[in-house]
Amino acid sequence: MKSTMHAGQGPHFLQIPGPSNVPKRVLQALSEPTIDHRSQQFADLAIDCITATKKVFQSEQDLVIYPGSGTGAWEAALVNLCDPGDRLLMAETGHFASLWWDLAERLGYKAELIKTDWRRGAPAEELAKSLEADKEHSIKAVCVVHNETSTGSVSNISAVRRVLDELGHPALLLVDTISSLGSIDYRHDAWGVDVTISGSQKGLMLPPGLSFNMISPKALAACQERKRPVSYWDWQAQLKMSQDGFFPYTPATNMLYALREAVDMLLEEGLENVFSRHKRHGEATRRAVRAWGLETQCQTEEYSSSLTAVRVPEGASADKVREVVLRDFNMSLGNGLARLKDQVFRIGHLGDFNDLMLMGVLSGVEMGLKRADIGTQSGGCDAAMAYLNEAAVGSS
Amino acid sequence: MKSTMHAGQGPHFLQIPGPSNVPKRVLQALSEPTIDHRSQQFADLAIDCITATKKVFQSEQDLVIYPGSGTGAWEAALVNLCDPGDRLLMAETGHFASLWWDLAERLGYKAELIKTDWRRGAPAEELAKSLEADKEHSIKAVCVVHNETSTGSVSNISAVRRVLDELGHPALLLVDTISSLGSIDYRHDAWGVDVTISGSQKGLMLPPGLSFNMISPKALAACQERKRPVSYWDWQAQLKMSQDGFFPYTPATNMLYALREAVDMLLEEGLENVFSRHKRHGEATRRAVRAWGLETQCQTEEYSSSLTAVRVPEGASADKVREVVLRDFNMSLGNGLARLKDQVFRIGHLGDFNDLMLMGVLSGVEMGLKRADIGTQSGGCDAAMAYLNEAAVGSS
Amino acid sequence: MKSTMHAGQGPHFLQIPGPSNVPKRVLQALSEPTIDHRSQQFADLAIDCITATKKVFQSEQDLVIYPGSGTGAWEAALVNLCDPGDRLLMAETGHFASLWWDLAERLGYKAELIKTDWRRGAPAEELAKSLEADKEHSIKAVCVVHNETSTGSVSNISAVRRVLDELGHPALLLVDTISSLGSIDYRHDAWGVDVTISGSQKGLMLPPGLSFNMISPKALAACQERKRPVSYWDWQAQLKMSQDGFFPYTPATNMLYALREAVDMLLEEGLENVFSRHKRHGEATRRAVRAWGLETQCQTEEYSSSLTAVRVPEGASADKVREVVLRDFNMSLGNGLARLKDQVFRIGHLGDFNDLMLMGVLSGVEMGLKRADIGTQSGGCDAAMAYLNEAAVGSS
Amino acid sequence: MKSTMHAGQGPHFLQIPGPSNVPKRVLQALSEPTIDHRSQQFADLAIDCITATKKVFQSEQDLVIYPGSGTGAWEAALVNLCDPGDRLLMAETGHFASLWWDLAERLGYKAELIKTDWRRGAPAEELAKSLEADKEHSIKAVCVVHNETSTGSVSNISAVRRVLDELGHPALLLVDTISSLGSIDYRHDAWGVDVTISGSQKGLMLPPGLSFNMISPKALAACQERKRPVSYWDWQAQLKMSQDGFFPYTPATNMLYALREAVDMLLEEGLENVFSRHKRHGEATRRAVRAWGLETQCQTEEYSSSLTAVRVPEGASADKVREVVLRDFNMSLGNGLARLKDQVFRIGHLGDFNDLMLMGVLSGVEMGLKRADIGTQSGGCDAAMAYLNEAAVGSS
Repeated sequence: MKSTMHAGQGPHFLQIPGPSNVPKRVLQALSEPTIDHRSQQFADLAIDCITATKKVFQSEQDLVIYPGSGTGAWEAALVNLCDPGDRLLMAETGHFASLWWDLAERLGYKAELIKTDWRRGAPAEELAKSLEADKEHSIKAVCVVHNETSTGSVSNISAVRRVLDELGHPALLLVDTISSLGSIDYRHDAWGVDVTISGSQKGLMLPPGLSFNMISPKALAACQERKRPVSYWDWQAQLKMSQDGFFPYTPATNMLYALREAVDMLLEEGLENVFSRHKRHGEATRRAVRAWGLETQCQTEEYSSSLTAVRVPEGASADKVREVVLRDFNMSLGNGLARLKDQVFRIGHLGDFNDLMLMGVLSGVEMGLKRADIGTQSGGCDAAMAYLNEAAVGSS
Repeated sequence: MKSTMHAGQGPHFLQIPGPSNVPKRVLQALSEPTIDHRSQQFADLAIDCITATKKVFQSEQDLVIYPGSGTGAWEAALVNLCDPGDRLLMAETGHFASLWWDLAERLGYKAELIKTDWRRGAPAEELAKSLEADKEHSIKAVCVVHNETSTGSVSNISAVRRVLDELGHPALLLVDTISSLGSIDYRHDAWGVDVTISGSQKGLMLPPGLSFNMISPKALAACQERKRPVSYWDWQAQLKMSQDGFFPYTPATNMLYALREAVDMLLEEGLENVFSRHKRHGEATRRAVRAWGLETQCQTEEYSSSLTAVRVPEGASADKVREVVLRDFNMSLGNGLARLKDQVFRIGHLGDFNDLMLMGVLSGVEMGLKRADIGTQSGGCDAAMAYLNEAAVGSS
Repeated sequence: MKSTMHAGQGPHFLQIPGPSNVPKRVLQALSEPTIDHRSQQFADLAIDCITATKKVFQSEQDLVIYPGSGTGAWEAALVNLCDPGDRLLMAETGHFASLWWDLAERLGYKAELIKTDWRRGAPAEELAKSLEADKEHSIKAVCVVHNETSTGSVSNISAVRRVLDELGHPALLLVDTISSLGSIDYRHDAWGVDVTISGSQKGLMLPPGLSFNMISPKALAACQERKRPVSYWDWQAQLKMSQDGFFPYTPATNMLYALREAVDMLLEEGLENVFSRHKRHGEATRRAVRAWGLETQCQTEEYSSSLTAVRVPEGASADKVREVVLRDFNMSLGNGLARLKDQVFRIGHLGDFNDLMLMGVLSGVEMGLKRADIGTQSGGCDAAMAYLNEAAVGSS
Repeated sequence: MKSTMHAGQGPHFLQIPGPSNVPKRVLQALSEPTIDHRSQQFADLAIDCITATKKVFQSEQDLVIYPGSGTGAWEAALVNLCDPGDRLLMAETGHFASLWWDLAERLGYKAELIKTDWRRGAPAEELAKSLEADKEHSIKAVCVVHNETSTGSVSNISAVRRVLDELGHPALLLVDTISSLGSIDYRHDAWGVDVTISGSQKGLMLPPGLSFNMISPKALAACQERKRPVSYWDWQAQLKMSQDGFFPYTPATNMLYALREAVDMLLEEGLENVFSRHKRHGEATRRAVRAWGLETQCQTEEYSSSLTAVRVPEGASADKVREVVLRDFNMSLGNGLARLKDQVFRIGHLGDFNDLMLMGVLSGVEMGLKRADIGTQSGGCDAAMAYLNEAAVGSS
C-alpha cells in the first residue's frame, strides 16, 4: 500500500471533529500482535479494559463494547430496548440528532423530533411539554445528543433528567456522547442516564471501529421485556460473557489494545485535567473567532469544548476556506452538514491535543481566511494567546 | 498498557484457526495515522481497497465492508434478504454452521438444519432432497459454510450450486467463507454464489474487526423486495456511497489500511500460489497426524487447507495437549467446540505462514503429545518433511 | 521500558536545532526487521541508499556512511587526510567550529583558528590572509562549518573555494554540513568541496547514529599519501566494499532503512522545494523575532534557514524562557552554548516541518516570553503570518 | 522505500549468528520519537540504561556505549590503552580473532597471534607460554575472543585470568563478547576482565549500531598513562559526562530506547534462564548435527550456545546448502569465513528465540541438506526433539 503519509513536510493536521489525531502510544498498542481471544491472557486484558473504560463514563454500571461504528451503537441502544411501533422523543440539536431520528424511523419506531434552530443544546422545556402531554406514558425513551458534532453545542443532560424526574415520567434516557466522551465532563451514573452511546474515534483518541453502550440497571430490566429479535447487538449475550472477559463473537482484539492504552492516557492525565484542557481550548478558539469578526454556530453558552463550528458571513463560502486550508496547510477541517452546508466550517480541538497544536490550527485558519478572501479581521491568534496566558495565571 | 508480548523468547505461535498471525507489514499499515474519512485521499483508498479485495473473492460483483465481526456479516446477509418467517435451508457441517442456524432462529427465520456427523462437508444430496421437496419454492435461501472451522472440512459449493440449477430452485445461495477466504480456492462468481460472507482475521491476515458481504445482482434484486427494517447492515446505503469511496457512517479507516496491505500481499504472492501453499501445509499436517497414529476429525477427502482438527484417542484429553503446548512452547492451538470438546485440538496453518513455521508448529505438537502422555508415536515431523521435500520436487 | 511519550496532550515539540522531529514514515522504516548484511537483498538496499543519498549532497563523488555521530565524521575526515603535525586552517564561526578545532588539536594537528564574534559566517577574507601568508603551502586543509548550529549563521562556501582557487592554494576544503544538509542549499561538487561531513539527525530527519563523509577525487588521492594509521574510519576499506553494497563491518542496517526512506521523502518533495520551505520558515521566524523587539544572534544576512538563535535583552535569562516553554508547552528549545550560555535560545525549524508547526512553535515562544517576563512586545506571530501569506502570493 | 518484508509467507528466518531476530518490543522502542539529548528526560533514560546494561555484563564497573560497530569497540579498547608499538598477545580462535589481530597491526601494535586449528577455544596453555617468556612484562594486553563466531567455540576466560594471576603478569585482559553477551554466561567482574568489548546485534537482540566497552579500574588507570591521541573513542570524556546521563556528542537516542527495552526483556526472563535456554538450544542443535552424520566445527567441549558451525563432508558445498535453504525456506544461515569458506555453514540460535523456532530452523536445515544432496541421514529433528523433551523432564 502506498503510505497515506506525506513527504517531509510535517504531519497532516486532522482537525475535523473526529476522528481525532491518534497518539503514537495508541497506534503502537494497536499494532501489537493479535492474541487468542479465548485465552486467559485475553480475558485479563478484556476485564481490565472494561473496568478502566467505565471510569471514563464515570460509571459503575454495565458496559458493552461493539466492533462497529457509533451509528451501530445508536441502533444497539434502540433495538435492545424498544419494539417496533414504540414511541421515542428526540431533540433535533443538529444534523447528527436528525440522523439518529432517521435511523429510528427506519427501524420502525415512532419518533417525535423536537425542532431547534441548530444553534443550541437540547431544549429541556420543549421536551418537558411533550412528556407532560404523554399522560399514558407511551413514550418509551428520550434520546438526546450530548455534544452535537454538527453545531458545537452541548445539551444539559442533568436538566433533561430533572424534567423526567419532576414529571415522574418513566421514559428511559438515552444519550449520545460520541463526540464528547473523554473530552467534556459527562457522568452516566450521576446524571441518571439509562444508555450512553459512544464511539472510539473522538475523545478516546482511537481510530474508528469500536462503539459502546453503557447501560443502567433500569435499561437492562427493560431489555428483558423487549420482543424485537436481536442478535449482533444483543446486550444480554455480551454481558453474560464479558464478565469472564470473553465475547460472543471474535472481538476486535487490536482495537481493545488501543482502547486500553488510550484510557490509560486519559486516566494518567486525570479526567479533571482532560476536561479543563478541552474547555480552555474551546474558549481560546471562540476568542479567536470573535476577533476575526465571525460568529460561532452555537449561540448560547452551551458551547462545545471539543469542536467549534464557525459561520462565515452571508455569501461567503465555508468550503472555500476548508479547501484553501487543506491545499496550503495540509489541515482538514470539518464541513458544514446538511442545512449548514458551506455556511460553517468546523474546527476539532479534541483528543490528543495541546496549546501549540491549537495555535498551529488557529494560525492556519487565520491565514486561510485571508487567502480565501473572507473579509475577516486579524488578531484571532493574538486573542487566543492572550487568553491562554491569562488562563495560565490562575493555574500556576 | 502492559505489552501482551513476552520476554526474549521469540514470538507467540498463534496457531488457532484464526485470528491468524498478522504480518508486520499489515500491523504497520494498521498503525498509520487516521485520515479524514470525507477526504478525496480517503475515497481513493476506499475505492482501491474495494477493487483489490474483490479479486480475493474472485468476483466482479458488489462488495460491502462492515466494521464488525463475521457473525455480523452472517446477520447482514440474512436481514438484507429475508423477512421474519422466511424459510432457510442450512447444513450443519459443525459448530459454526450450528451457530449460524441459531442466529437465524433468533432473528425469526424458519431454518431447517440438515444434520451431519461433523466429519465432512455439506451433503449436497441431502440438501437436494429438501429442495426437491420444496415444490412451492418457499425456501428463500440455502446457507452453507465453505470451510467449517470446528472440524476442518470443506463443502463443495459448486456441487450445491449444481443442485439448485438442476432443480431449477430459485433459492439464494449464501456461503460463509470466514475461515477459507484467502487460503482456499473460492470463486464467488464462477460458483454462482449470491452472498459470500467473510471476515478479516483468518486468510486475510488482519486482526478481527472487519467483515464482508459479496453480493450477486440476484441478491441485490431480492434485497429490494425485503420488508424487514435494516439500518446498520443495509446494503443499499453502503453501495450507494461506496461507489464514490465513502461510507454511510465513519468507517474503520485503519482497518482499511490494513486490508489494503494484506490484499496487496496476497496478490503479490498470487492467489494460485497462496492456495497451493495452504494445500501443501494441510497435506503435510495430515501426514504428521497419521504418523502420530491419530485421526483427523474430517473423514472424507474434503479436507481443509487452513486448519486441521485432530482427534485424540478415546479417553485422552485434547485440552491437556493444548495446555501443555501453551505452557511449554508458547503456542495456542484451537480447542474442541461444543460436542467436540476435549476430543479434538485444532491446528491453524493459515495466513502469514511458511514451511519452517509449520515445522515449528508440528514439532511443538509432537513434543506436546509426548509430554501430555497421549500415547502417540513419533515420526510425524519426519513424515511432514518427507512430504514437503517430495512436493518440492515437482515444483522446482 | 516506560514510554518516553506523554499522556494525551499531543506530541512533544522537539524544536532544538537537531535532532529534529523524525517523521513516522522514517520511524516505521527504522523498525523493519533487521536482515542479513551479507545478503544480496542487503547489497541492493545499500547501493540504492548510497546512490540516493549522494543526490542530497548534490554530488556524484564518493560517499562513506559510518555508524557514528557527526563528531565521528569530523574525526574521520581529518584522520584519513592528515598526519599528526599537519597544519589546518579553521574559522571559529561559533561553538561547533571551536569543538572541531578542539578535536583537531587533540588528534595532534596544528590548527589555526580564525576568530569571529560568533555573529556571522566564516570570514573568507580572513581565511584568505592566512592562506596568502602560507607561501610554502603547508596548510593541508581548510575546515569550515557551513551552518553554525550555535549561532544560526551560514558560511559562504563557494567564496572560500574562490579564495583557494584565486590564490592557487592546494589546501583541501573540508566542510561540516551536519545541521544544513537536506535543509539549506549545499553543493558538494559545484562548490569544489573535498570532504563534506554530515550527520543523520537534522535535515535528514533520522535519529542520530549515522554520519557521512562525501569525498572528492582529490581528497581520495591525498588519503593514499597519509601515514597515520586508521581503521574504523578508513575510507579505502569502506569504498572498496561499498561498491558492491557491503561494509567492512556490520553496518547499522535499520538506520540504513531509515536513511533510504528519509532521502526518498526529500526527493519526493524536491530539493528545491525543501530548501525554499526552510528559507520561508527562517524568514518568518526572524520577522517574529524582530516584532518581539529581540535580535537574532546572526547579525549579517548570512542567516540560517534551519535554526534561529535569538538573543534575550541584557540581564534577562534565555534559559528561563526555555524552562517555561518546556514546562508549559512541552516544547524543547536549544540553549545558548559556551559563551552564549543563557544569552540566546535557539529555535530549530528544520526537517519534517510545516507552516502550522512553525506557527505553533512561534506561538509557544511568544507566550513563553510573556510568561518569563522578558519584556518583549506582542505581534511576532502576526508578523510571521503576514509574511507567510505574502510569500504565498508569489507562489500560487 | 520498498519494504524489505516478503509477501504473506511468514517472516524471514534470520539465523545467521547475528544480527539476530529483533523482537517486536525492541523494534517498537526503537521507533519512539527522538527526544532532546540534553534534557533531564534523556539523562534519566541514559542512566537507567547504563545501570541496567551493566547487569548483563555481570559487572558494577564502568560502561561506555558507542554509536558504532563491534569493530569500533575493538579499536576503542586498544587505542584507549595502548601506544603504537605496544605488544599484544592474541589467540587466533578463528576468523574474528584474526580480524582483531589485523586491526591491531593496522593501528601500529605488535600483536603476537597464537595459532589454533580453529576448532576450539583459546589455548590457555599456549598463552601461558608466551606470557611466561615475557619476563620483562612488555606484553601490554592479552586479547581473547569469548565466543568465536566463525567456529562456534567458546574460550575459557577464567582460565586465562588464572594464567595471568599465577604468573603474576600485569597484562590487561581484553575480551570480545560480541556474539556471547546476553546468550552465554559471562562475568566481567568475577573473571577479572579489564575490558569487555561487545555489540548490540546478537544476544542483546538489537539492530547493529551500538557497541560497548566495560572497563575495570585497572584499565581506567592504564588509560591515563596512554599517550596516543584519541577523541571519538575516548573513555574519559565519555565517563565524565555519562555519570550525569549525557554524552560528549549526540548519542544514538533511539538505539538507547531499544537497548533499554532489550535489557528489560533479558532481566525479566532472568539471566540464568537466558543462559540455560541458549545452552539447551545449542545441545539440541548438536544432537541434530550428529544424527545427520555431520560434525561440528568445534571439536572440543567448548561449544558455543549461540551458534553452531556445521562442517559438510569433504567435497560437498556448504554454500549450496545455504543457497537452497534461502531460496526454498526464506532462511539465512551464516557462511564459512576465510579458510572455512564453503566448508561450514553456521546456524545462529541466539537472541529472541524459542524451542519451536529452533525446530523450524533445524527442519529447514534437514530438508535443505536433502535438497542439496549432501548425502546426510534423516533423524536430526527427531534427535533434537527427543533431547528437548528429555531436558524438559528435569525442569518441570
